[in-house]
Amino acid sequence: MHQQPGLVILLTGHGKGKTTSAFGQALRAAGQGLTVCIIQFIKQKSDTGEVMALQPLGDRIEIHTTGSGFTWTARDRREVVEAAARGWELARRKIAGPYDMVVLDEFTYLLTHRLLDEKEVLQCFRDRPAGQHLVITGRDAGPSLLEFADLVTEMREIKHPYHRGVKAMKGVEF
Amino acid sequence: MHQQPGLVILLTGHGKGKTTSAFGQALRAAGQGLTVCIIQFIKQKSDTGEVMALQPLGDRIEIHTTGSGFTWTARDRREVVEAAARGWELARRKIAGPYDMVVLDEFTYLLTHRLLDEKEVLQCFRDRPAGQHLVITGRDAGPSLLEFADLVTEMREIKHPYHRGVKAMKGVEF
Repeated sequence: MHQQPGLVILLTGHGKGKTTSAFGQALRAAGQGLTVCIIQFIKQKSDTGEVMALQPLGDRIEIHTTGSGFTWTARDRREVVEAAARGWELARRKIAGPYDMVVLDEFTYLLTHRLLDEKEVLQCFRDRPAGQHLVITGRDAGPSLLEFADLVTEMREIKHPYHRGVKAMKGVEF
Repeated sequence: MHQQPGLVILLTGHGKGKTTSAFGQALRAAGQGLTVCIIQFIKQKSDTGEVMALQPLGDRIEIHTTGSGFTWTARDRREVVEAAARGWELARRKIAGPYDMVVLDEFTYLLTHRLLDEKEVLQCFRDRPAGQHLVITGRDAGPSLLEFADLVTEMREIKHPYHRGVKAMKGVEF
């Protein structure tokens, strides 16, 4: 661990680039010898390009995927709440662990949909090891998280090709 | 090369996350087996975390750094114009080459400071191999580039720790 303060970096907004930026941040950190733990709060399959490409860095970057099998807005609330609790339990353990950086990708939804207790979450962030950087992504970050973060970037969508019918492409979107 | 159309992805704005997102995009592409060429239009040393971390992916990701030794706004205009021309010559060659994705990091400055002919640049982008994706980053992208791009995200700075005196940190900023 380092003597410098750990930063809380929040990437929010409806534009593209939140997850890619978080992975780029993890890449940069690992390249400088920091240890990184990434937790993705999505139901996504684990063969996205970014996950596969980070495998050679496996000694410095650890990746977990957690999610409900549905989106966080799925109608079966009980299933979603349980999945959120499981994901958060993993995150808490990792945040307490010896990582220089922890990335919580697509995490804000768990707060905006009130699947977790925000006060408890922020307290856990405050109690993290000294010097640990936290990178948090997801749309619509709420006021408490915005206030808590040290560095906040809003990704604004100016133009998106889906609006003219272009489909998600391998290597670009996943 | 793929039969799908190549996208032009533009990451602009004054917020953090443009370069990290571009590198994350390159990582994702390489993880899916695409070949990537990254050209950084900065005077930066080559031992940034992201550059070092991508070395294990060297068979799929190629990285070049080009720049003037000064910032693009340096007062010695001749030196800067020559460096821009050299950088653009490299970019043109790589765009014409057999890459599935070309990343031009911090490129917009060369257009906003009129170091390159914008019409020639856009024509080169149009003439690129079918299916090649272009990722372009930098502040203050102008109207022609915004119009030309398929996907545009503006990174807006909402909060930045430098404003309260926190210094750039290894593994976070470089």
